[in-house]
Order: sequence, then C-alpha cells, then structure tokens
Amino acid sequence: MLTHFADRLIAAVKQKQTPLIVGIDPRVSQLPSPLAANQADSPTAIANKVASYCIELIDVVADLVPAVKPQSAFFELLGPHGMVALAAVIDHAKAKGLLVIMDAKRGDIGSTANAYAHAFLGNTSQSSWACDCLTVNPFLGADTLTPFVDVAHQTGSGLFVLTKTSNPESNWLQTTKNEQSVPVYRMIADHLQSLSAAHAGDSGYGNIGAVIGATYPDQLAELRSAMPNTLFLIPGFGAQGGSANDVAPGLDDDGLGGLINSSRGIIFAYEKSEYAHLPWTDAVRQATLNARDRIAEGTSAGKLRG
Amino acid sequence: MLTHFADRLIAAVKQKQTPLIVGIDPRVSQLPSPLAANQADSPTAIANKVASYCIELIDVVADLVPAVKPQSAFFELLGPHGMVALAAVIDHAKAKGLLVIMDAKRGDIGSTANAYAHAFLGNTSQSSWACDCLTVNPFLGADTLTPFVDVAHQTGSGLFVLTKTSNPESNWLQTTKNEQSVPVYRMIADHLQSLSAAHAGDSGYGNIGAVIGATYPDQLAELRSAMPNTLFLIPGFGAQGGSANDVAPGLDDDGLGGLINSSRGIIFAYEKSEYAHLPWTDAVRQATLNARDRIAEGTSAGKLRG
Repeated sequence: MLTHFADRLIAAVKQKQTPLIVGIDPRVSQLPSPLAANQADSPTAIANKVASYCIELIDVVADLVPAVKPQSAFFELLGPHGMVALAAVIDHAKAKGLLVIMDAKRGDIGSTANAYAHAFLGNTSQSSWACDCLTVNPFLGADTLTPFVDVAHQTGSGLFVLTKTSNPESNWLQTTKNEQSVPVYRMIADHLQSLSAAHAGDSGYGNIGAVIGATYPDQLAELRSAMPNTLFLIPGFGAQGGSANDVAPGLDDDGLGGLINSSRGIIFAYEKSEYAHLPWTDAVRQATLNARDRIAEGTSAGKLRG
Repeated sequence: MLTHFADRLIAAVKQKQTPLIVGIDPRVSQLPSPLAANQADSPTAIANKVASYCIELIDVVADLVPAVKPQSAFFELLGPHGMVALAAVIDHAKAKGLLVIMDAKRGDIGSTANAYAHAFLGNTSQSSWACDCLTVNPFLGADTLTPFVDVAHQTGSGLFVLTKTSNPESNWLQTTKNEQSVPVYRMIADHLQSLSAAHAGDSGYGNIGAVIGATYPDQLAELRSAMPNTLFLIPGFGAQGGSANDVAPGLDDDGLGGLINSSRGIIFAYEKSEYAHLPWTDAVRQATLNARDRIAEGTSAGKLRG
C-alpha cells in the first residue's frame, strides 16, 4: 500500500477513471422512502436509518468513484448516536476500497489542533473516525496549520485547507488584499503550495491540498497554475451551480490534480423528476454515471478513460 | 428564566461576581493520579475517566464561576465514547446552574451551518450537546454566519465568533487590510457589532459575541470601544501569557461585557509546585480563587464584589 496520501489518491482516480467524488450529507428529512424517519423514531433509530442509507449509498457508488466525503455536521446533528453512525460509515467506505475525506473544517491552536488531527487522521488514534484526509480552516493562522500538517505527514494522510470557498459571499474576507496586493486566498494558496512542494510524492502532488469552489472558475485557473504540486478539492459542482466547464480549470492536463465533489445532485437524485421512476439506489447510480460523463466530456478528465 | 443569552450571561457574571470562566480541555495524559489512564484501559474506560474528571472539576468550580467552556477537540479525540462523555459533562454543568459555552469553532455554508448550529445550540435538537453558546469561525463569509445567528436567536442562545485570536501568528490573515485600510478582524468586528446592536437585551449586550485574545491588549481596547453591544470571550489568560492587565481593556466600566477564560492554569493546577501538596480538587479550587482575585484586583471586575 502506498503510504503517501496524494499518491494513493492519484492512483485511485486513475483506477476509477474519474476525479468525481461523492459527498455524503445525510439530511434526515430527505432519506428515501424505505428509510424515511418518522415521529416515533428514537434518536438511535434515526441514526441507524442514516447509517443504513449511507452504507447502501456507498455500495452503489463504490466501483464508480475514488473517494467519498462524509460531512461531519449532519452526523453531529444526531448527537452521540450520529457519531457512532459516522464511524460505521467510514469503516464501510474503507472496506469497499474507497478513500475517505472527512469534511469537518476543523481549526484551532496548538495542542487543540493536534487533538482534532488525531481524532480524524491515521489509524493510531483511539478514535473510530480515522480517515485518509481532513478538511481544515486556516483562519487562525499558519502556525495553527502546523499540527495538522505534522499529523498528516506522520500518518500518511492528507489535508484540504479552505482557500477560496464556493459560497456567494466568500469574497468578504478571502479576497481582502494585503499591502503587497496579495489577496488572502492567495496568501493561503502560496503557503499550501510550499508545504506540498516540499513533500511531493511520485505523482508530483503533495499531501496538503486546497479547497477551491467550482463557483469561482477564474480563481481555479489562477491557482491551478500557481500551485502545481497541490491537490484541489472542488466543491460546488452540480447543485451549487458549477458546470463541467467551471471545474475544468481545476484539473491538470492529464485530468489529475483535482477532486470534483457532488453531494446533493447525487445522493438525493431520487427526488428529481428525471429519476423518479427508479428505485432510489438506481437513481443514485444513474446520477453518478451521468456526473462522470459530464466531467469526462467537459474537462481533461476524459483522458483518464484512455 | 431569561431567554436572552446575553442577559442570562450578565446575570450569572453578577451573581458569581466574576467574569472568569473555566475552559474544560481534558487531556488524557494529564488526568490527576486517582483517574490516570493506563495502557490496559479500553476506549470506553478512558472516556469514563475523562467524564469523571470533568464532572468533579465542575463540582469544584460551580459556585465560583458563571460558565464553563468545554473544548470539543479533546472529546472528539476519544471517538464516539468521547462524545457520550461530552453529553454527560454538558448535562452536569447545566444541572449545577452553569452556562455552557461549547468551544467547537464550527463554520460551513448554508444548510451545513444550520446542522452544526442545531447540533450544539438550544434544547430542541436531537443532540445531547445542546449548549447555551457556540464558538464559530467566520472565514467562509458573512453569509455563512447567518444560519448560526438565526438558530441562536430562535433558541435564546449565543455565539462567539472568532475575531482576533490569541495565537502568535493570528496576524497572518486577521490583520490583512482591505482597500479602505480596514483589517479583517475589524471587518468581522463591525459585522458582529451590527448584529448584536440590533438585538441587544436589557443588559445592553446582544447574543452575537466576539472571540478576542488576551495576548493582543491593544486590539482588545480598540474593539471594546468599537463594539459597545458585543460580548467578548477572551482566551489567553494565564497559561498563554495574558495577565489581568492584558485582559482589563476587554471589560466595560462595570466589569461586564467580557468573559475571561482560563483552561490549563486552572484545570491542571495540581501539576504546579505551589499546589502539589494539595488533593487535586483543592488545587483546582485554589487556582480558581486565585484567578478570580487577580482579575478582581487588575480589572474593573473588582466592582462586581460591591
């Protein structure tokens, strides 16, 4: 097994012939009818339904994508039972050969950052949430990224650090410019590129990636060029409005270097009229195949199909 | 019962005659000897020891401080068992009449932010972690604060939003200035002040507070004056180097408007030579009394003693 996260990820993208990953955001009110929650359900019963849904979802997409990205918030919303469900989902995804990117956007100082990193990365922690990768928030400062980076290197894991996010008002702080006219997102980007360049694997990419929204294609293009050794996690494709054309600048010439996340567009596909005639699992599979095709046709990722 | 968070907090500060709060950061390697973890302990056994430690800690300080601030990271590090322990700690603190400020520094977009808010605030969620207040990270944008603010208002809860943090390199992004020469921390501060001014309670303070480190007393003074309706959560007192003189500018003329957090300096007081002769609970109590005295002597909070 490759111990370098970026190399493992690139190998998985090549094997599955797509940079598409599936975001697992289990909203209880949107569970498919066979698993729908009702008023009488206990918190344990609801968490069990959520776990069953996520596990079936993983079974449906496991041969089609390199990785899944569970969103911690929706599990946390269910209390301790939800965190048990999250552990079961992570274990199942790993057993199915998928890489697991924990979307928890953690950030804190010193030994607190170290505790978060060990809670979610590697296999040595007491936690049941040891994933391949964690999303991290850089707002507190570059010094607060160091504990996360150290744990990632020690455990062969990766990070995706928020750089330019997909939401409408991400410009508020992220495009504020310093005295040298460098915007905040670029300050972060340059720091991440230096970290990844210093520990690049055989793939040419390092373990310290950047989150850059599909909804800002100009910045995706700018940063792809400025960060040749840095993996991108690209949210905002599909439900948030990003098209294949929008995400295309985030990939390198070989269709590598970026992961394109779709959550709602895939995992709740059974709510769309075009898939309403199908069992929910078939709807999810069709939507995944569809997203793969759109990405292959609209970006350099088409080359992965050889 | 007051349903406005800021009013409940100010009433508790007046009742306990101090703005000191105790940060609960349970590091397993530093548990006092009666509860020390050992190699043979299962994850459940370790989480139980952590819960016992936190609950004893709360019993020791409950009559001396208005609130406690559990640090989520150290519970998450223990996996799902740790999250059960966190629920027990929150319940115990509330039963002892303390306000509970969850230090989880969450931040995300739209419905994900809403899920985090409901996971940790109010009493209507399925979660067992419903607290009086949550710390939030504003990096993604002002739009991403809105779901947290809405849930806080709906539930009579509060937020403390990271504004100028206590770590050495917090200037990296936080003092970057926009084209009008307004630094990032001040952009956040002005937004929070407008939110709190619009919903101030009888105390004059609103529910949307700011985190401002004791290690930056000049900015503490600047922001106290610029944010007359905004509560401050002031970390960095004690172990991180902040003195009573440093935190003094964060309080108003009546000794109100700010909470001064001490974590390690109190909860691991039994490791200090000056307290080594005492049972661990007595060491914690002495350190708490000591911190209260230093704050009363060095700040306007002395007026709370009437």
